[in-house]
Amino acid sequence: MPVPSPNLYPSFNTVRLSHACLNVADLGRSKTFYTEILGLQVSDETDSHVYLRAMEERGHHSVILQKSDLPGTVEVMGFKTYDEADLDRAEAEFRAKGCPTQWVERPYQGRTLLTEDNIGIPLEFYHKMDRLPSLHQKFALYRGVKPLRIDHFNCFSPDVDASVAFYNDIGFRVTEYTEDEASGKLWAAWMHRKGGVHDMAFTNGRGPRMHHIAFWVPTPLNIIDLLDLMATTGYVSNIERGPGRHGISNAFFLYILDPDGHRIEIYCSDYQTVDPDHEPIKWDLKDPQRQTLWGAAAPKSWFEHGTEFTEVAPRDSALNATPIIAP
Amino acid sequence: MPVPSPNLYPSFNTVRLSHACLNVADLGRSKTFYTEILGLQVSDETDSHVYLRAMEERGHHSVILQKSDLPGTVEVMGFKTYDEADLDRAEAEFRAKGCPTQWVERPYQGRTLLTEDNIGIPLEFYHKMDRLPSLHQKFALYRGVKPLRIDHFNCFSPDVDASVAFYNDIGFRVTEYTEDEASGKLWAAWMHRKGGVHDMAFTNGRGPRMHHIAFWVPTPLNIIDLLDLMATTGYVSNIERGPGRHGISNAFFLYILDPDGHRIEIYCSDYQTVDPDHEPIKWDLKDPQRQTLWGAAAPKSWFEHGTEFTEVAPRDSALNATPIIAP
Amino acid sequence: MPVPSPNLYPSFNTVRLSHACLNVADLGRSKTFYTEILGLQVSDETDSHVYLRAMEERGHHSVILQKSDLPGTVEVMGFKTYDEADLDRAEAEFRAKGCPTQWVERPYQGRTLLTEDNIGIPLEFYHKMDRLPSLHQKFALYRGVKPLRIDHFNCFSPDVDASVAFYNDIGFRVTEYTEDEASGKLWAAWMHRKGGVHDMAFTNGRGPRMHHIAFWVPTPLNIIDLLDLMATTGYVSNIERGPGRHGISNAFFLYILDPDGHRIEIYCSDYQTVDPDHEPIKWDLKDPQRQTLWGAAAPKSWFEHGTEFTEVAPRDSALNATPIIAP
Amino acid sequence: MPVPSPNLYPSFNTVRLSHACLNVADLGRSKTFYTEILGLQVSDETDSHVYLRAMEERGHHSVILQKSDLPGTVEVMGFKTYDEADLDRAEAEFRAKGCPTQWVERPYQGRTLLTEDNIGIPLEFYHKMDRLPSLHQKFALYRGVKPLRIDHFNCFSPDVDASVAFYNDIGFRVTEYTEDEASGKLWAAWMHRKGGVHDMAFTNGRGPRMHHIAFWVPTPLNIIDLLDLMATTGYVSNIERGPGRHGISNAFFLYILDPDGHRIEIYCSDYQTVDPDHEPIKWDLKDPQRQTLWGAAAPKSWFEHGTEFTEVAPRDSALNATPIIAP
Repeated sequence: MPVPSPNLYPSFNTVRLSHACLNVADLGRSKTFYTEILGLQVSDETDSHVYLRAMEERGHHSVILQKSDLPGTVEVMGFKTYDEADLDRAEAEFRAKGCPTQWVERPYQGRTLLTEDNIGIPLEFYHKMDRLPSLHQKFALYRGVKPLRIDHFNCFSPDVDASVAFYNDIGFRVTEYTEDEASGKLWAAWMHRKGGVHDMAFTNGRGPRMHHIAFWVPTPLNIIDLLDLMATTGYVSNIERGPGRHGISNAFFLYILDPDGHRIEIYCSDYQTVDPDHEPIKWDLKDPQRQTLWGAAAPKSWFEHGTEFTEVAPRDSALNATPIIAP
Repeated sequence: MPVPSPNLYPSFNTVRLSHACLNVADLGRSKTFYTEILGLQVSDETDSHVYLRAMEERGHHSVILQKSDLPGTVEVMGFKTYDEADLDRAEAEFRAKGCPTQWVERPYQGRTLLTEDNIGIPLEFYHKMDRLPSLHQKFALYRGVKPLRIDHFNCFSPDVDASVAFYNDIGFRVTEYTEDEASGKLWAAWMHRKGGVHDMAFTNGRGPRMHHIAFWVPTPLNIIDLLDLMATTGYVSNIERGPGRHGISNAFFLYILDPDGHRIEIYCSDYQTVDPDHEPIKWDLKDPQRQTLWGAAAPKSWFEHGTEFTEVAPRDSALNATPIIAP
Repeated sequence: MPVPSPNLYPSFNTVRLSHACLNVADLGRSKTFYTEILGLQVSDETDSHVYLRAMEERGHHSVILQKSDLPGTVEVMGFKTYDEADLDRAEAEFRAKGCPTQWVERPYQGRTLLTEDNIGIPLEFYHKMDRLPSLHQKFALYRGVKPLRIDHFNCFSPDVDASVAFYNDIGFRVTEYTEDEASGKLWAAWMHRKGGVHDMAFTNGRGPRMHHIAFWVPTPLNIIDLLDLMATTGYVSNIERGPGRHGISNAFFLYILDPDGHRIEIYCSDYQTVDPDHEPIKWDLKDPQRQTLWGAAAPKSWFEHGTEFTEVAPRDSALNATPIIAP
Repeated sequence: MPVPSPNLYPSFNTVRLSHACLNVADLGRSKTFYTEILGLQVSDETDSHVYLRAMEERGHHSVILQKSDLPGTVEVMGFKTYDEADLDRAEAEFRAKGCPTQWVERPYQGRTLLTEDNIGIPLEFYHKMDRLPSLHQKFALYRGVKPLRIDHFNCFSPDVDASVAFYNDIGFRVTEYTEDEASGKLWAAWMHRKGGVHDMAFTNGRGPRMHHIAFWVPTPLNIIDLLDLMATTGYVSNIERGPGRHGISNAFFLYILDPDGHRIEIYCSDYQTVDPDHEPIKWDLKDPQRQTLWGAAAPKSWFEHGTEFTEVAPRDSALNATPIIAP
């Protein structure tokens, strides 16, 4: 039984994933993509950074574009805690796990703890972020795919069992998972804090690398509108996979690539998982509908390409040398 | 300032609303309505009860139809706690508040605490309920409006300030509210536990009475399909109000009446409210877009009609004798 | 039997309705409404006129906004013929019917015949209009309700039987109609040339007056997007009726008013009527689902308000002095 | 210039495509597929035939399933004429072209002319077919993809220029086409009678063979519902291609295979082409967005597989021996 029992009483309380900071080569080009095509709103911008949020978000940012000499890398993934004291409890927890911790200054955020998970993914936790007026009923501002909120992160891990154990320990609960029947090991797992299918997911592969960040939209028609827009405004080659439906998570999905190669999933059809006794769904690695309930098979790039974390060297997975074929 | 500060550390942890038991005159007639029109699935049925769940629910029931000599009344509203010990903490809390408490037997549920809120609404809390196999990808079973899950209760209260104070105390957090500027009192409030706009809402009026229970669907097209179906299968007079969009909650809504007069809302366009510092949105009682961002004005029945709780006598609200005109 | 047999071999061949010229007080204000809210594209504009087309139209204009001292009146309704010779045959036909005819110059149109129907509605027929490059796959240009094409005209007639006889004679075929059982007379009728439910419809009432012009959109979600936009950009009072579904024509509809009071219907769910033996559907004036299969009852203004044709005095209908109550 | 000028005055008037008769191995199996999955309604059935229509059709049948020892072949494609005399004019026209003609008895149809086109496709023309009560507002009957009407036929032709010349001559008008720049020859063409993008289309390849018949649905969500249904009821391998959008015709499409290998397209986003001067849109064979504006590339089977006409031997196309690569 590869999925650990959920830890219903973790030492600190993480509310949800919050934001990612993405390194990009050309701030203007990326801003155009994220605002005109994806449809995010600018909260603030400087010579080096653009801060963005989705239409129903009141926190200051869920995406930070950072001008960088290492474009196509991910600086950090951010999470929000339930209260200030959770930050101190988190520091103690990560220290106890042997992870480096430090307190860092972040614009628009309160006290922020920078640390790493067991495979080296840079994480930051905060409780307070500047709050902005609600936008969700300013319908004249909706653009692109009309994204409502950031939904989840998905990362390659060279050891999914270890990643799941780590996040399970800090209170993330598995909702769905793929098991490699031969080895009895986890191939992939989806874990949540905020009551949907996932805040964080891991897939077997050379890692740590970010596979994608995802934004939630209400209906498949938003995704079809985005495809029409991208296909006729010079972004057709940025469409990587979809539309289709995953068996896992039941997501109606689309995967696109930003100008620096960061993968973004547009996603709808999530379901509610708040029950503490919500049973994870197990999928067999040999079931192709796990990946694709219907739709074209994923291209090779979708299994191979990811964006590395800045200055974190990925390592190969011991589990399977042929990840492309297996899923 | 009529909205109390949220109690982020209540004495027991309620996960979400769970189910309602509705008294009906004709079990067969009601079953037809709830399965063929609304599209719920039967979990079990006896001579006296039909147990129903929506398509993504794994708990045994979210609606219980109960054959009764008091049709058109509501037997009880149910909530799920985070763990078993929460039930004992809940018992202590309700006793301390002077509410009657007793442990009752309920089919398919574990230990169940029956109590009342401050205005007499019968509530039951449980932690364990039989879990059933997932249905959400059995697409051949989808019927009617294709309901995914129960979303919230909405009740008339003769004293909304008192109701909000009571539920705030047990950890429900206000997301939106209407204030009567003249009196400085609350006219209505929406309160959540599970991270959406509401698990429970209160509106000023003769109460306690149930205004409606709501089911969540993903897109407005589900609601339009339901309207087409009801309008051509003999249920056109069961359509009470809608479709339209509320300013409050941003809900694309439809209100229908079941054969005994219980009101059901079909609802989409909810938003996420998990942040503990999520600010409530205040609406002015004089703003008509609060009620109806767009769409026809609500009929008089929508302001006046509700279904009483079995053997609980409602009382008039002191706040305002003309609720129909005011909203 | 009030509906005449269709004239399958009229003396000239009208392809479809084409355009309307609407008199407005403030060209800039109207242009904003028609482009930003409705989503039409500007083909050309002068100090006195704005020429507009919908997204799949290749003809130069389907709406002409004309600056006028008689704002809120309709200048003319335009139709396209199958070939040039049809214009001459049309001239002969209208002359034979005793209608005034003249050849007029119209920008962007070829030879244009100006005439009147039996109740005085100014009509113009042309065969050639400047053709423009297709826009329907320029998805970045879509705005507002994303209108695809003009769909139909709807006019008040003081004598619907006479109007139907007139248009039937020139080849318009009835698809649906309402009969006043008491008098055996037509209350309303829908007539087409292009193979949908209607190019032109008549409703009993003081006339001639335009009730509305309609634009076709593919899905109800376009209409809901428009409602959200209008409700939050200062146009909430321009929403007159809907959304709802008509029994007649099966239209999912919305009625809005432009800044000068011209009524516009947004419409989807049309059906194909190209068969020459397509049977008209009869509705009883006493069947409320004829008007509203579901949805709120129409407001009084919807039965009473229309925009007059420039310098054409309307007269009352003899049929029924209480049109508001009857439908 | 490979596209001939449209013949606006053909010798007989074809209203639209009407129906196809498909040979199947197992009538029960095919009936289940066409009613439960596709959602057609049974008009009549015998031991050897099932007659089906879509939801807004009033003609008796648009698909006939015929039990046959030659399953996976197409018996005939049917068209409706404007009047009875058109049948005699059609007979004269086909005779003049050297095509065989005979008058045949068809259940539920009036006088029926059986003939062949230039490449041997068996065609039948009728004017009268039994008319049935309208179903389009019997919403409780809608099933599967909720098909509204048959939309078009698409066939492989070994000589598309010749096929286009033949149908152009009898009044079909080209709306879009693909030209092979190298040879100056047509690769594919879409031709209509009823005012949409096509009633009949031809693609270069071994022929005559039917590539597909298509049904029209109003929104992409119908197609997504069908995919969900097929993927979870044992029909996942019958999904061949899609969803996606064609550049040509702007169709949001899905291609599925019936149990005998007949290909069916589900289609929305058609546009209006009634104008006699509607300009055809030219696509370059080297433009991949012609085929796929966005979406996965078509599988090899989509270019190669078709169903033959009963007892009509197909021949290879001289134009290009590598059709799979070229498009």
